[in-house]
Amino acid sequence: MEFTFLGTSAGTPTRSRNVSGLALCHSGPKPWYLIDCGEGTQHQLLRTRYSVVQLRAIFITHIHGDHTFGLPGLLTSASMLGRTEPLDIVAPIQVQRFISAVLANSDSSLSYSLNFIDSEASDFQWQDEHVRVTNVALSHRVACRAYVFTEQSLERQLLQDKLRAEGIEPGPGWGELQKGNDITLEDGRLLRSDEYTHIPRAARRLIVAGDNDTPDLLADACNGTHVLIHEATYTQDVADRVGPWPQHSSAEQVARFAQQAHLPNLVLTHFSSRYQSGPGGTPHINQLAAEAMQHYKGQLFLARDFDTYRLEKDLSLSCLTQTHSI
Amino acid sequence: MEFTFLGTSAGTPTRSRNVSGLALCHSGPKPWYLIDCGEGTQHQLLRTRYSVVQLRAIFITHIHGDHTFGLPGLLTSASMLGRTEPLDIVAPIQVQRFISAVLANSDSSLSYSLNFIDSEASDFQWQDEHVRVTNVALSHRVACRAYVFTEQSLERQLLQDKLRAEGIEPGPGWGELQKGNDITLEDGRLLRSDEYTHIPRAARRLIVAGDNDTPDLLADACNGTHVLIHEATYTQDVADRVGPWPQHSSAEQVARFAQQAHLPNLVLTHFSSRYQSGPGGTPHINQLAAEAMQHYKGQLFLARDFDTYRLEKDLSLSCLTQTHSI
Repeated sequence: MEFTFLGTSAGTPTRSRNVSGLALCHSGPKPWYLIDCGEGTQHQLLRTRYSVVQLRAIFITHIHGDHTFGLPGLLTSASMLGRTEPLDIVAPIQVQRFISAVLANSDSSLSYSLNFIDSEASDFQWQDEHVRVTNVALSHRVACRAYVFTEQSLERQLLQDKLRAEGIEPGPGWGELQKGNDITLEDGRLLRSDEYTHIPRAARRLIVAGDNDTPDLLADACNGTHVLIHEATYTQDVADRVGPWPQHSSAEQVARFAQQAHLPNLVLTHFSSRYQSGPGGTPHINQLAAEAMQHYKGQLFLARDFDTYRLEKDLSLSCLTQTHSI
Repeated sequence: MEFTFLGTSAGTPTRSRNVSGLALCHSGPKPWYLIDCGEGTQHQLLRTRYSVVQLRAIFITHIHGDHTFGLPGLLTSASMLGRTEPLDIVAPIQVQRFISAVLANSDSSLSYSLNFIDSEASDFQWQDEHVRVTNVALSHRVACRAYVFTEQSLERQLLQDKLRAEGIEPGPGWGELQKGNDITLEDGRLLRSDEYTHIPRAARRLIVAGDNDTPDLLADACNGTHVLIHEATYTQDVADRVGPWPQHSSAEQVARFAQQAHLPNLVLTHFSSRYQSGPGGTPHINQLAAEAMQHYKGQLFLARDFDTYRLEKDLSLSCLTQTHSI
């Protein structure tokens, strides 16, 4: 599984960081999934290997503009590029209203259909052949969700000794069992794939959280999760100065939570534009990293635009565009 | 007067060209005017000297997304940056509906008021102390306008010999007349500024046109105009192949018109993303230039993102970021 940050700035873009957007794929860039879509997401995509034509679904964490204002342009550009596949948009219902109003008032029509799915529905879940997606309610100024991506359809190994011991010889039936399909033998016996195959590894799971001032809400979901991508808008001193009203997390808060939850990998993003990246800038983005390191002993990363990460089958995470974690 | 292209691509952005946006100022970047606001306009502005806090008014040519989808992000970012000055938005009424719907469905509020002005009103005109703006109806798939910017408040020279001949000696009254104000003398005589001052040069005038398949509609407005900025989406061969439905102009069409109208300066923009800029690209952007040159003998430019032009008081136009015209 791979993911690429398309934007890592909170609220407004800066010269080096766009507003929120994350591209995720299971095995190669077709299909792929987009989580949040701030203004300029389609521009960022032009610098990646992802195409809006191959996008399978969009997951919006919440309705704020820095997570949604890129939708109209991305959707109409996909149409101009000739997309015909329907597109799922998982989002609060206001997003449907916003998109409908924009399309109606800009003389726009799409060459494909949009399928809106309410992210706030209590029974929300979404899946395709690669991933199963659930979500968790967060605490922010508006309804906001974290999306939990768990891979599906893992490779199965046949329990060959068991099959042979029961007199089932190699043939097309073995292939079906290995694909996860149950089969019926000529003698009427039903063989369940789950009983004759073994999945030799854990399903990879990662969480992409939206804006949130209470990381503890993710405690249950983090059990068995290999990567948490979470906002860290401020250092604790700035968070204290700003006060609680924006309902964001500090680096310290998220780090403490991740440590307590025994998360092996934490990627921080959605940084206030006040944090500088250049040499000598103040306050500096490194202050967020330093603060998080004090409280979290797992593998920590601070996201940058266009950073691409790979979560391997052995559950190790590496950033392909940074030489080492922090 | 200066103007800077923020986007020069038609329909969709490319890696080197954003969708439409143009920053214009009369004398320095405070205040300034924005014509069209495609997605990513606020990002482009981060690389210029223009700030959304000092923006005086936005003029939208028509409702298509590549001219409007940057509005929500630009407006909310101005709010986050603390803007308090009201902002005029000159646009078709659908733009007001679109912005209202977006703000309402994204939990957004602005720290300043928006003043919507219908660009399609028959008596439209707008002015401040620097410029007077009128518009001209164009021919496109939706209602579309060209904006005519004429500078105001030109420097006046006192007719000193006339004043002295009439016994009016130097004093504060001379200053008022020079500022364009009429004065009443102690003896009751009313002196009109226009009768005792002289404006030694022509008012600079430029036209920023929206999408349009009939340049001739600008014939009257181009009389006395020093620069026309007009779309040239296609070369003529591509326009012929695409057919008339998009209602755009070819480079040839605009060039022929500009030649006939005796326009001294023509800047082409809004190029189809099929035209490449790199060496060896095909079709190449230079084909648009070559085609226009065949039919237009004035000073011709093809706009690039971030190109800045200056229209001097002597009515000469130069591009500060390209060494010579085409």
